[in-house]
Amino acid sequence: MEKQDLLYEGKSKTVYATNNPELLIVAYQEEKGAVNNRVSNEVMRMLERKGVPTHLVRQLSDRETVVRRVRMIPLEIIVRNVVAGTLSTLIGQPEGTRLRSPVLEYRYKAAALGNPMINRFHVFALELCTPEILEEIDRLAFRINKILRQLLLEADIRLIDCKLEFGCLPDGTVVLADEISPDTSRLWDAKTGRKLGKDRFRRDLSDTTEAYQEILDRLGRIHCE
Amino acid sequence: MEKQDLLYEGKSKTVYATNNPELLIVAYQEEKGAVNNRVSNEVMRMLERKGVPTHLVRQLSDRETVVRRVRMIPLEIIVRNVVAGTLSTLIGQPEGTRLRSPVLEYRYKAAALGNPMINRFHVFALELCTPEILEEIDRLAFRINKILRQLLLEADIRLIDCKLEFGCLPDGTVVLADEISPDTSRLWDAKTGRKLGKDRFRRDLSDTTEAYQEILDRLGRIHCE
Repeated sequence: MEKQDLLYEGKSKTVYATNNPELLIVAYQEEKGAVNNRVSNEVMRMLERKGVPTHLVRQLSDRETVVRRVRMIPLEIIVRNVVAGTLSTLIGQPEGTRLRSPVLEYRYKAAALGNPMINRFHVFALELCTPEILEEIDRLAFRINKILRQLLLEADIRLIDCKLEFGCLPDGTVVLADEISPDTSRLWDAKTGRKLGKDRFRRDLSDTTEAYQEILDRLGRIHCE
Repeated sequence: MEKQDLLYEGKSKTVYATNNPELLIVAYQEEKGAVNNRVSNEVMRMLERKGVPTHLVRQLSDRETVVRRVRMIPLEIIVRNVVAGTLSTLIGQPEGTRLRSPVLEYRYKAAALGNPMINRFHVFALELCTPEILEEIDRLAFRINKILRQLLLEADIRLIDCKLEFGCLPDGTVVLADEISPDTSRLWDAKTGRKLGKDRFRRDLSDTTEAYQEILDRLGRIHCE
């Protein structure tokens, strides 16, 4: 596997082409990147075993992973089980309120516009994807949420919300892409309510990496049981 | 028909109970209220003839109308054909851009929160209405938009967007309620692009009432043809 052109450089990840046109290498930066890489790959492997297709091919090293090249859908899909963050302000309910049914939100990946929350009619009018693809994204997002909630609860972690991104393989299959890690999820300790996921990072709470490592350790314990 | 308790007092309308528990009287304030009342009733009669159920019973006077008492769904449904207003900022497209497909938006009627734009999953989690009712609202909103676009185009008016509200009759039927008037629609002259609807009022353009009267006159001409 030969690393070639730099295709994308983000805040926490860089993506490279490889000598295989169907594969990419994702390289995580920063100290916590190594944990995110390992958590994301661990979670995707678990999802694959439950029948959810992902872009994961194999972990190359602590910070590098080989993934399938997909056509990314320019949407962030937020799945929420409990009110937190922007939703708290939007609907005027306190953080921690359990939602009666899981909520999906679509954010249009357009940094210049501040990644605004849009709805499915905007998605269609902007031709970000077809109704059929969005329906499949909804189905996968709810399924991933259900699997992860159960999985994390075994590790005494509550999944408050998480951000998902999807892409299409050349044959049209919709697969989970990007990362799914403590950086993209709100994870609270099921017993104490202590924040383990991105709240820590966002609010500058100390010991981010240690908290992330704890998530990885807890997941590892489950995996072995 | 006896006017009884004041049930609601808004910026432009007051609503009264009557001696018939199934009926209400809506009274429009301000000079332009008389035009809004007549336009709204005229439009609802046209929609009824095309099979769209509404709350309209009969016009009592220039400013008063008898309507059926419904359980209001606390949503403003915005239907858009052309980019304007908040959508222009949201998706970064100039006012006047034609949308590839009509867009529906749901605004949660909660003044303290600023009537935020939410999506259908928020609607279900907040239990604002059932999925079946929302599906019927979507269907009616798109149908009303199609009928009004054609109707207004015959009067050389482009329907840019409009705001609809719905309610449920005791038997569960979803009906168009509130008003549908120049105050709740963006209407542009099809030839000159001149603003005839709520843009005038909102941006403090002069001659609001005259512009509204012009819409009524144009609708009247079509109706007679």
